[in-house]
Amino acid sequence: MTASQHPEIFPPLIEAGPPGPFLFVCEHASPHIPASLEYLGLPESLRLAHIAWDPGALSLARGLLARLGGRCVSATVSRLVHDANRSPDQPSAMPETGEGQPIPGNRGLDPDAREARVRCAYLPFHEGVMREVAFALGRGTSPVLVTVHSFTPTWFGVPRHVELGIIHDADDRLATSVLAAACRLTKLKAEMNAPYSAADGVTHTLRAHALPFGLPNVMLEVRNDLLETPAQVDAMAGMLAEALSDGLHALRERAA
Amino acid sequence: MTASQHPEIFPPLIEAGPPGPFLFVCEHASPHIPASLEYLGLPESLRLAHIAWDPGALSLARGLLARLGGRCVSATVSRLVHDANRSPDQPSAMPETGEGQPIPGNRGLDPDAREARVRCAYLPFHEGVMREVAFALGRGTSPVLVTVHSFTPTWFGVPRHVELGIIHDADDRLATSVLAAACRLTKLKAEMNAPYSAADGVTHTLRAHALPFGLPNVMLEVRNDLLETPAQVDAMAGMLAEALSDGLHALRERAA
Repeated sequence: MTASQHPEIFPPLIEAGPPGPFLFVCEHASPHIPASLEYLGLPESLRLAHIAWDPGALSLARGLLARLGGRCVSATVSRLVHDANRSPDQPSAMPETGEGQPIPGNRGLDPDAREARVRCAYLPFHEGVMREVAFALGRGTSPVLVTVHSFTPTWFGVPRHVELGIIHDADDRLATSVLAAACRLTKLKAEMNAPYSAADGVTHTLRAHALPFGLPNVMLEVRNDLLETPAQVDAMAGMLAEALSDGLHALRERAA
Repeated sequence: MTASQHPEIFPPLIEAGPPGPFLFVCEHASPHIPASLEYLGLPESLRLAHIAWDPGALSLARGLLARLGGRCVSATVSRLVHDANRSPDQPSAMPETGEGQPIPGNRGLDPDAREARVRCAYLPFHEGVMREVAFALGRGTSPVLVTVHSFTPTWFGVPRHVELGIIHDADDRLATSVLAAACRLTKLKAEMNAPYSAADGVTHTLRAHALPFGLPNVMLEVRNDLLETPAQVDAMAGMLAEALSDGLHALRERAA
């Protein structure tokens, strides 16, 4: 293993909002690829493209945090170093290609190099989420886990019409409530499990941190052309905060 | 919060055996209650009793590790400080009583004191297990997670006849294979989900570390009067190593 395979550790950014029940998680918040990994061999243009992160997702998560309260855990390194929303054994955890583009620095990684990626990116992130969940539960509160993502308006040239995707894993309780609220309270084109679903391997955070503790949970996906300006982000955060708040209320009414 | 509610951190003991696929986990390996917690107000006789730990479990886990290979993660602090096999929101995580005995130092813990327990005992243990799983998966291997426990021969005066309990959570694949192997290869009185089951809230480690990654997993419970001497432990480790090895082989044959 060369020195370039020993990058520094990337602990997540932890932000506190006003008091509230939500734990927002933003796995694809950052496009940062460290120089110690030789930028994975990518030109700067690709390092800022969607293959490296989810543009707008962190701003949206912060808008939700400010409105709904709670805490937010965000990655500080690119998904191309180790995707925080993938188990280390998934091929897309350290992808050799991204949307058809080869990622030279991820080609043919040996076990030591893969372990180094887990150590620098996957573990600090998931230790951070685990801490937030465990402290909250220990203190007698039950966090509501919401992961915040964005997706591209086109996929290999085909336009995507969905604007808001509500994605769930084995527990669909909150997703069902939030989708119903979004359809009632907003004009967004909202769909369940679009543009992809748990079957595509995109619900690792929900599986690792919500399901074992029975936490209400949902994954939000927003089309990133709706998150390009601060005004757009603000408007979207307002709509989704209403949908989340209403959806959580409905869930608790049903459970009561 | 008083100084006595800020105990030191208890990282788990991590032991390596010969190369092998197993990750043994021994949540109740230690009776240690720190002086900084004023021994939870318990006399020494109770601090060494089953309410504080699983006598024989660590020795058994080490015997399995030596025979089958892999790694072993063991707690270094008593289950009465924070049970490593309970989520922090379960009442039995920091129990106010144990087998009918009051635990004075766990009475009426406030949120700060509960968070301190999570910080000193729960988190370091589960970070250790998470690391082992993530590194193995990152390196391209899939660990087989086996938790190792012991139980008392009597329960509130009633004798327990079962000698070996095989316990599972949502994924019963390995448990089914291991029980079949134990019945075929040993004379142990072996039963599925005895003397308790997932419904009793005893499968937290399996839920947190095996299910999210699809790892083969099982919880073993051995009656502790069969683990009192080194010779007994050695004999039991030999029998259970055969059952685990055979059960894993059968599972892989079925999957192939």
